[in-house]
Amino acid sequence: MVIDCHGHYTTAPKALQAYRDAQIAALENRSRPRSKGVVEISDDEIRASLEGAQLKFQRERGTDVTIFSPRAAGMAHHIGDATTSLDWSQKCNDLISRVCGLYPDNFVGVCQLPQSPGVRPENCIGELERCVNELGFIGCNLNPDPSGGHWTAPPLTDRYWYPLYEKMVELDVPAMVHVSSSCNPNFHHTGAHYINADTTAFMQFLTADLFKDFPTLRFIIPHGGGAVPYHWGRYRGLAQDLKRPPLDELIRNNVFFDTCVYHQAGIDLLVKIVPIDNILFGSEMVGAIRSIDPETGHYFDDTKRYIDGARVVSDADKQKIFETNARRVYPRINARVKGSRYAAHAAQELL
Amino acid sequence: MVIDCHGHYTTAPKALQAYRDAQIAALENRSRPRSKGVVEISDDEIRASLEGAQLKFQRERGTDVTIFSPRAAGMAHHIGDATTSLDWSQKCNDLISRVCGLYPDNFVGVCQLPQSPGVRPENCIGELERCVNELGFIGCNLNPDPSGGHWTAPPLTDRYWYPLYEKMVELDVPAMVHVSSSCNPNFHHTGAHYINADTTAFMQFLTADLFKDFPTLRFIIPHGGGAVPYHWGRYRGLAQDLKRPPLDELIRNNVFFDTCVYHQAGIDLLVKIVPIDNILFGSEMVGAIRSIDPETGHYFDDTKRYIDGARVVSDADKQKIFETNARRVYPRINARVKGSRYAAHAAQELL
Repeated sequence: MVIDCHGHYTTAPKALQAYRDAQIAALENRSRPRSKGVVEISDDEIRASLEGAQLKFQRERGTDVTIFSPRAAGMAHHIGDATTSLDWSQKCNDLISRVCGLYPDNFVGVCQLPQSPGVRPENCIGELERCVNELGFIGCNLNPDPSGGHWTAPPLTDRYWYPLYEKMVELDVPAMVHVSSSCNPNFHHTGAHYINADTTAFMQFLTADLFKDFPTLRFIIPHGGGAVPYHWGRYRGLAQDLKRPPLDELIRNNVFFDTCVYHQAGIDLLVKIVPIDNILFGSEMVGAIRSIDPETGHYFDDTKRYIDGARVVSDADKQKIFETNARRVYPRINARVKGSRYAAHAAQELL
Repeated sequence: MVIDCHGHYTTAPKALQAYRDAQIAALENRSRPRSKGVVEISDDEIRASLEGAQLKFQRERGTDVTIFSPRAAGMAHHIGDATTSLDWSQKCNDLISRVCGLYPDNFVGVCQLPQSPGVRPENCIGELERCVNELGFIGCNLNPDPSGGHWTAPPLTDRYWYPLYEKMVELDVPAMVHVSSSCNPNFHHTGAHYINADTTAFMQFLTADLFKDFPTLRFIIPHGGGAVPYHWGRYRGLAQDLKRPPLDELIRNNVFFDTCVYHQAGIDLLVKIVPIDNILFGSEMVGAIRSIDPETGHYFDDTKRYIDGARVVSDADKQKIFETNARRVYPRINARVKGSRYAAHAAQELL
């Protein structure tokens, strides 16, 4: 079985964006009382939005289940206030829940959190609980920079975030560290802000004792860990010079990278350098890059091909990357998605 | 000949930092008239600061000349105002000039610019001209974020920077894009801020027509290009989706990466993916990582070993990385440093 840990609902029906546009427009006119509003989307519209995109690609590429969350760039926590963000997050999460209900074999939900600049993270606990306990979601996306490119929040290792972490640990759900769109003109969102946030979060984790305080807290750093695997020597050296634990030890049970790296040489580096137990298959499909690589004739984001093509990875290690690691990092998926063909086969052998 | 394009005077005698400390302390007491002050360092102190460090490593590692600039983290353009920054930059640049005077075969100067948040880049032209025309420097370090981690300046592709670029083109000097220390607690300077700035600058260059306006303007993106080579597929895809030129074409005459990547696998990726003509040997020695890699028994930042060890690179290509490309990107070095052993040999053959 192939679990894709990184998919966003980038193809949501237009009514969702229309809701958001109206919500933003209403912020301009503060005299009117705010209404939460409704998003009117039929089941058929949801089906149509997925059949020609995520579901088609799953079939074509041979992946089975996508851990699915609202569009990352759409979170835009910097817009409006905490109420804006809560209303918007609930609409987005509810839609993900409907997707998972319509296609329970293909999608498992991860939620957007109602973060807002300057608002303490415990404000997100209610929505996290709702999504996990009522909607059956298995994780969340955590934005280390709700300001959208101004980086005004404390580092992820600061006690500021601890109440949310306590709830994540209690619910046994991980967070993917994922920024949203950038309102800082220096940072292109998918080309700079996303990758920078990944690198930044890793270095924050390297320099603090967060995982001593939360031994079971788990983060997925997307986009192949930003710049980190390419600069693994630099980070090993920094850890050594700063008297921190070796990287393998530091990340072992707590920090994981996905495989959203869009060429073979990048994936080859990732799987060679980072411990296999810390790599989860992900594609970000349908996401940042939507076209076909003229050098290969295949979609840039068909990352399964690169893992399949990575010569140094054994079949047993591919099984970890494609399935087992995701089950360990997102344990609530086990109640939602049955065992793999491998697992079924292994079980058969025991009979 | 091996030219190291990336070295900072991280081992400067203590009197330099004492000057800076006094300068910062004086900022607290604005009632006193500011004095530019003096940095008292003898030639012997300069020699002592280099003999056991940069010069020793040059000899041990088999490199010849270092393109040498003031300590990057020390620039701290966010401290004080434009006068603070000018005074400090002049002291630092003068010291680099003395180093180059004492060891003309080993060091060629690159200057720190007196940038200051909110102050227009043309304010740096005077110091750039002084360093190039009077001190014989061959380039500058340009900080895309003088705020030190708050990213308040316009992108490098904005017309805001054009007056400085006009002067760079006129003087035929390139800039290394290099941030300084971070006063934003989110960003560890050498572990996140530096690498993020590299990635950010590249994406800025990708999305604008700067090099149509300045066909001969040249930037070195240090630290192996940040995250870019690892995510080369992502950037090729972004260029394609955004209807931009192919990356190779986009960077050809204008954007160059150094080799400050501290493990073999990272360098192997860099030299495999990025056009050889766009790679300049650099080590950042003595810099971010000062210890020995227990996996190899050699210094992390002994990057010459990784280039030497890169199997896919021909001798002719190594010659480009080690020398020829640097001579093309920093043409003023040719008047300062004589031809290489290779060049001398080639010349001999012609006789």
